Amino acid sequence: MEKSKFVIAVYVDNTAGVLTRVSGMFTRRGFNIDALTVGETERSEYSRITICITGDEYDKEQLINQLRKLVVVKKVEVLDEDANKRELMLIKVKNDSQHRNDIMTAVDVFRASVIDYSMQSMCIEVTGNPSKIDAFVKLMQPFGILEMCRTGIVALDRGSETLFTK
Amino acid sequence: MEKSKFVIAVYVDNTAGVLTRVSGMFTRRGFNIDALTVGETERSEYSRITICITGDEYDKEQLINQLRKLVVVKKVEVLDEDANKRELMLIKVKNDSQHRNDIMTAVDVFRASVIDYSMQSMCIEVTGNPSKIDAFVKLMQPFGILEMCRTGIVALDRGSETLFTK
Repeated sequence: MEKSKFVIAVYVDNTAGVLTRVSGMFTRRGFNIDALTVGETERSEYSRITICITGDEYDKEQLINQLRKLVVVKKVEVLDEDANKRELMLIKVKNDSQHRNDIMTAVDVFRASVIDYSMQSMCIEVTGNPSKIDAFVKLMQPFGILEMCRTGIVALDRGSETLFTK
Repeated sequence: MEKSKFVIAVYVDNTAGVLTRVSGMFTRRGFNIDALTVGETERSEYSRITICITGDEYDKEQLINQLRKLVVVKKVEVLDEDANKRELMLIKVKNDSQHRNDIMTAVDVFRASVIDYSMQSMCIEVTGNPSKIDAFVKLMQPFGILEMCRTGIVALDRGSETLFTK
């Protein structure tokens, strides 16, 4: 079966050890997580974990069934293809006068922003869907990337429905 | 000892099961993670985990020592107070004509952006340091928050040094 990337949102109890239980299940089943975020939600008793996975339809079904078996898991949902997906990256690049204009133009076009600036380096903040972030990384490579970190995806379905009203 | 929030950056091998090993150590030691992100870095062989923890100086030392003992951990660093810290949130709020102006003004002032709009709801993207995000959530509460998800913090130290050159 064809493999593709999919994004799963999971509501879990906001207590110690929950992340270990969820990520442990992934490890035991041999799923490699492309990216994962955990954060607060509109209900303080729950956290929302957003997971990106590469796999086929069978993997996806298996994964959802396994997640639903965990007591700490309250709700599991595969997000639609057209869900709003966003990621944030901080990237530190070399600042030399020869490339400065090229970098600043890219920052402009990508609606990114420079959040730290010295004569040796600058730190740029970019948000967007993951492919936009990938493109920005590629663009910066020739100028010398010193350090970068990406949050991983967060995603909400379009429209006014929520995971709990669906 | 006084408890405070601190942010730790960890470079780990980019292989299956690493997150489980790291988060398992936190669970065994009874640390509750406030937020956690995992993402790609400037070196494809490593992932960077950014962890927010509330604890005292003793907890911090213990945690760093334990992390350094894990084979999959390549580098551990507590980020400076003044490091660039950023977080991204997607938040879906009710769209009713009575509150629309209030919401749009807040979006403007926070330099946020509306990424999905229907007559029933709108989805807003906000980035900034965590306290800015907290403030935006508070502001939206009276208008009816339908759903939200936060990435957790990513952070880079100021200046041109990196975790590996330090």
